[in-house]
Amino acid sequence: MNAGRLITFEGMDGCGKSTQAGLLAKSLSSKGHDVVLTREPGGSPGAEEIRQLLVEGSPERWSAETEILLFTAARRDHLERTIRPALERGATVISDRFADSTRVYQGASRPELRALVDQLHDAMIGKDPDLTFIIDMDPAEALKRGLDRNSGEHRFEEMGQGFQDRVRTGFRTLASDNPDRCHLIDGHRDIDAIAHDISRIADPHP
Amino acid sequence: MNAGRLITFEGMDGCGKSTQAGLLAKSLSSKGHDVVLTREPGGSPGAEEIRQLLVEGSPERWSAETEILLFTAARRDHLERTIRPALERGATVISDRFADSTRVYQGASRPELRALVDQLHDAMIGKDPDLTFIIDMDPAEALKRGLDRNSGEHRFEEMGQGFQDRVRTGFRTLASDNPDRCHLIDGHRDIDAIAHDISRIADPHP
Repeated sequence: MNAGRLITFEGMDGCGKSTQAGLLAKSLSSKGHDVVLTREPGGSPGAEEIRQLLVEGSPERWSAETEILLFTAARRDHLERTIRPALERGATVISDRFADSTRVYQGASRPELRALVDQLHDAMIGKDPDLTFIIDMDPAEALKRGLDRNSGEHRFEEMGQGFQDRVRTGFRTLASDNPDRCHLIDGHRDIDAIAHDISRIADPHP
Repeated sequence: MNAGRLITFEGMDGCGKSTQAGLLAKSLSSKGHDVVLTREPGGSPGAEEIRQLLVEGSPERWSAETEILLFTAARRDHLERTIRPALERGATVISDRFADSTRVYQGASRPELRALVDQLHDAMIGKDPDLTFIIDMDPAEALKRGLDRNSGEHRFEEMGQGFQDRVRTGFRTLASDNPDRCHLIDGHRDIDAIAHDISRIADPHP
């Protein structure tokens, strides 16, 4: 079996990861790769419905524990219906967010739940990416960009800059703790310069 | 603190448990008890939204694993928003289904997932009822009653009588494994006779 690769993009809202995920997908596709571009929460019809429950409404709508269960349910569906079938046919799957987002966001808001997040991941997901790009950015700049988008999905953005500072630290720690799969990318630079670096890492022998 | 009681009703669809839950709620209320009548999946605004994801669509809509996560998310919300606040003020909470339904239904369809169901229950719910009535009924009779209701929530009913036979066995085994909290009730009898028995067990000193 020609097993594919799972490449994920992580970072706070507004850091440019969706743009970069799209550019990498386009670049690999143009070279003839079979590429599936997807996102979390969501990425499969069922998971997109669960996403609606997660991103709409007030930040107090769900407790942290219920939220972790819903994220894990959406991820399980995404993995079964979109990611695994694509990897099995040898495709490159590029996901805008994956399990690292749950680890970092829950770690920034309720660090005492980290063991629970890990337990659920091990029991229900058990899959880590082959390659992860973490786009690092000053929270004030990322927050401004995120609010500018008016996406209507403001649950995390509304939690303020203190929270965003902890998220940035969480992503940087994740990168240093997982040097084999994680690459920390400086997101303050020109879009094309960032895309060039990412493409060189994802496809070193083009 | 005057801690309340959690009483649950379990059994296959069509066995009469919703009717009996309502009759017990009415009986205890009429004697001056503070009673909260609720149901699963659902029982809180968020959990009712998750319920819609669970009961609508085809039986293949979710894998067993995703379904267990969604049931557990709904139960966690139900516990936090409805059950615990009521128990803390000393109320009697009567729930039409609770964790035993997940144990028995998943056990009837995917017995190899029982350890996972238990692991999620211990990690995320950790609450068992004080008293559980299991309404036992011949599956053919219960199936007929369930289909007659035209509730539009046919996921489990559609799985056929072989499945219902395993569900009946599962509930009977649950009752014999948990004699302290579970009472097996013969559901083939007259509604009032069943209600009388249940009321005598739930409120032995009226």
